[in-house]
Amino acid sequence: MSTRPNPMPGLINDDHVLHRISGELAGKFDGVFSPEMVDRYVFESYTSLARTAKIKTYLTSITKHFAEDRLNALAHAQGIRPSGKAEVLFVCVQNAGRSQMAAGLLRHYGEGRINVRSAGSLPAERLNAHVVDSMKDIGIDLDADFPKPLTDDVVRAADVVITMGCGDTCPIYPGKRYEDWQVEDPADLDPAGVQRVRNDLDKRIRKLAAELLAR
Amino acid sequence: MSTRPNPMPGLINDDHVLHRISGELAGKFDGVFSPEMVDRYVFESYTSLARTAKIKTYLTSITKHFAEDRLNALAHAQGIRPSGKAEVLFVCVQNAGRSQMAAGLLRHYGEGRINVRSAGSLPAERLNAHVVDSMKDIGIDLDADFPKPLTDDVVRAADVVITMGCGDTCPIYPGKRYEDWQVEDPADLDPAGVQRVRNDLDKRIRKLAAELLAR
Repeated sequence: MSTRPNPMPGLINDDHVLHRISGELAGKFDGVFSPEMVDRYVFESYTSLARTAKIKTYLTSITKHFAEDRLNALAHAQGIRPSGKAEVLFVCVQNAGRSQMAAGLLRHYGEGRINVRSAGSLPAERLNAHVVDSMKDIGIDLDADFPKPLTDDVVRAADVVITMGCGDTCPIYPGKRYEDWQVEDPADLDPAGVQRVRNDLDKRIRKLAAELLAR
Repeated sequence: MSTRPNPMPGLINDDHVLHRISGELAGKFDGVFSPEMVDRYVFESYTSLARTAKIKTYLTSITKHFAEDRLNALAHAQGIRPSGKAEVLFVCVQNAGRSQMAAGLLRHYGEGRINVRSAGSLPAERLNAHVVDSMKDIGIDLDADFPKPLTDDVVRAADVVITMGCGDTCPIYPGKRYEDWQVEDPADLDPAGVQRVRNDLDKRIRKLAAELLAR
């Protein structure tokens, strides 16, 4: 039985940063959500990312993005702060390949008029490196993206939910458009295979973007 | 591209049940947490369990237990409703074997004076069957237990956090007692091996219970 009074000094220090983020976001969502609820969003977002993220260096920074985006999704879903945009969510198992590529492509083709999110039922430790390279080849930068667990708020915010290989792990709510895309998993592929998946997704996403922008 | 207007009728119906659970818990936590926050706890607890649980049959029922326990943990941690008991959290990777056995044993030896929780960094689909059998052999019933993801609230509530094999995925907060126990993983063992783990844990837990009850 070994005692660990302070085995992870990095994470202890994060507490102060998280409180600061919580204060900032409470300001941004003043009159929308209580500071108490914003605080919970920040700390639970952090823990849910810490459970799977391998690299802890950017954990507070991605926590801020994740918590803020989830709060935006919730404010939109509840009609308190509608985004005025089409809202699309891509879900796969690891949120490290397919759903990240699809999201990157739709952001690219969406002309700033589509809110795009992605999530995974079992988020991986990091993005697939071939996926990041393959997207970089066509000028789309995924360096700031990270695998995120699927949450209720982002499903509720979505008008369109597109699943790829995550089976029955995605909660389904009425009044949304659901599609299940049969797309190869980049996790099993070499760089050439990943490019093939990217090109497949590119066609599908161009079609989806055209539909959504024509509304 | 296949369209799935209603691929999971069971989950659609759950929405009504979750709203009812949310109302019930809002009553129980009246004056402690806002109905809005209780609602978020219920729906996000549900989604986090649905992401990994294989069997969806009892999902609303375990959601109610999980959400209520998390809210109790938070109310205790924030000093709004202190439990008046020692609070112990066991964490392993899958929350399907070691942490469930340890929690079951400490509940047994705790004489109702210790609040015991368990969680996993990557919760499994269900409890290990040999683990459930092995605990039944000594009169401890784990049938109502289920693998749960580690959340911020239960770590904050804990006086003692005991990790088993989950490495650096557990957030660490100051002011708590941390121990890392080297215990075999029942996932890799036959029934005789699982009994050996149970007996190892039994010794450790008797010692821990005696310490905590002597306070």
